[in-house]
Amino acid sequence: MTLSPAAPPTEQQAREERLTEQVVRSFGGCPDPRLAELMTGLVRHLHAYVREVRLTEEEWAAAIGFLTACGHITDDRRREFVMLSDVLGASMQTIAVNDTGCGAATEATVVGPFFLADSPEVPFGGDVSGGAPGEPCWVEGTVTDTAGVPLAGALVEVWEADADGRYDVQYADGRVAARGRLRTDARGRYAFWGLTPVPYPIPHDGPVGRLLAATGRSPMRASHLHFRVGHPECRTLVTHIFVDGDELLGSDAVFGVQDSLVKEFVRQPAGTPGPDGRRLDGSWSKVRFDVVLAPAVGDPR
Amino acid sequence: MTLSPAAPPTEQQAREERLTEQVVRSFGGCPDPRLAELMTGLVRHLHAYVREVRLTEEEWAAAIGFLTACGHITDDRRREFVMLSDVLGASMQTIAVNDTGCGAATEATVVGPFFLADSPEVPFGGDVSGGAPGEPCWVEGTVTDTAGVPLAGALVEVWEADADGRYDVQYADGRVAARGRLRTDARGRYAFWGLTPVPYPIPHDGPVGRLLAATGRSPMRASHLHFRVGHPECRTLVTHIFVDGDELLGSDAVFGVQDSLVKEFVRQPAGTPGPDGRRLDGSWSKVRFDVVLAPAVGDPR
Repeated sequence: MTLSPAAPPTEQQAREERLTEQVVRSFGGCPDPRLAELMTGLVRHLHAYVREVRLTEEEWAAAIGFLTACGHITDDRRREFVMLSDVLGASMQTIAVNDTGCGAATEATVVGPFFLADSPEVPFGGDVSGGAPGEPCWVEGTVTDTAGVPLAGALVEVWEADADGRYDVQYADGRVAARGRLRTDARGRYAFWGLTPVPYPIPHDGPVGRLLAATGRSPMRASHLHFRVGHPECRTLVTHIFVDGDELLGSDAVFGVQDSLVKEFVRQPAGTPGPDGRRLDGSWSKVRFDVVLAPAVGDPR
Repeated sequence: MTLSPAAPPTEQQAREERLTEQVVRSFGGCPDPRLAELMTGLVRHLHAYVREVRLTEEEWAAAIGFLTACGHITDDRRREFVMLSDVLGASMQTIAVNDTGCGAATEATVVGPFFLADSPEVPFGGDVSGGAPGEPCWVEGTVTDTAGVPLAGALVEVWEADADGRYDVQYADGRVAARGRLRTDARGRYAFWGLTPVPYPIPHDGPVGRLLAATGRSPMRASHLHFRVGHPECRTLVTHIFVDGDELLGSDAVFGVQDSLVKEFVRQPAGTPGPDGRRLDGSWSKVRFDVVLAPAVGDPR
């Protein structure tokens, strides 16, 4: 074995490692064992990172400045730290370690920065677009458990960007559009009018956007429609559906694409009436998404 | 080798590792090789951390909320991310990997959150206390290079907490006190009146303070006086001196104590005139701190 010329001498290494152990020991009195595990693991990785890359003091100061800028741009409508976690794949890795062992259940993906807890309720077959510009899209499907039993009264929350690639919260006028919620019927079915998803960049006028630009990465997300589906007996699912054929499927800025979530959005020519008899002036699309919810955590099924 | 019961099955492990590699590859077009190294190293450690601790989605959301709170409390006078780095030992580890290989030079320690680039200039033997409450302390020493050559005109910047354990920037009245700057004389000497350092807590009314409380850690720092010493021919030194005998030397909240920086502050009884002939009503202390600056980075000495 040959040592890299950059490897610090043994005495220096020992000094750096002693410091890490000193910090780890400082959590020895932590009353919560899980918090102690989280903090000592964080300290070990953070210190190992600083040592491995031989972080300079200028780089340390730049990191402090970057985190501060992320904090300062964040408010109720802009969540820069969520986007940071998303573009580093940390959100998707968190989902990967939690969304395990329920082979039949629909896969999860990132929640992203645009979910709002309150959205307008619509009836079965209602329209969630709220006047947002875009091609209409009929979305329908069922919600079942992993045994295939339909789940009545499941809450289906959906949100998406408009034809200009922006979510309602990205406008300054306080609009609520292209988001909504509905309940499955007695047979576990849901259906609504939304918008055909389009590709769009994540908000890139802040520190995360500057990081992507500096590293030669694109802020573009593959076209998608967000879902959050919950039922008292099941684990709540946060996911998207993606548009089959979208050329961005292989380069999604937040690594959210799962093959099983790519769906065929079938374009309907102008003049085709909607499944509910709705008359539409232009083209529209339709997609089917059947959701399978995993058992609630701790539920032995 | 036996597998821990918590170890995820091989297929799951492979899926998690594939995600990490996908994120690492996304930096393949980064035009700056050092930035690429920093980002891919960060991604590998961040993902390894999430996998090792099996981070839950609730814990992920708590981390996002914590970082957001750190950002929101930060302003020009409050630097929560610096304190976070400090209490995790990341600041000190960064110093450890940079402050190497100059055995004769004075050791560095953390800059902390209270340095200001502008501080009042005082003459040789002047008073930096600016009216802050506290026991007077005469501080004197020399600034030399590692060959022992005195450095004339070196800039000595100092800052410290007052007798109530607070820095000027922690008061809302805009005061500037217990901080100042002076130049070494032709023989490399400096001297000033400051305050005898006292122990104090780092600001613990924000998210970092709540983290320390939740983990059973103390926010107390060992008594110290901050120095930043610069000279055009040398590497700028950021350090403190600590008070010999302080019972907090072994449990400093930011891991800043180096044995070589612990100095004897010699208390003088009331009535003892100062070294400069100053008449003092009460007790005072004196300390000597001889500073040795390392060669500028890249300088072959």
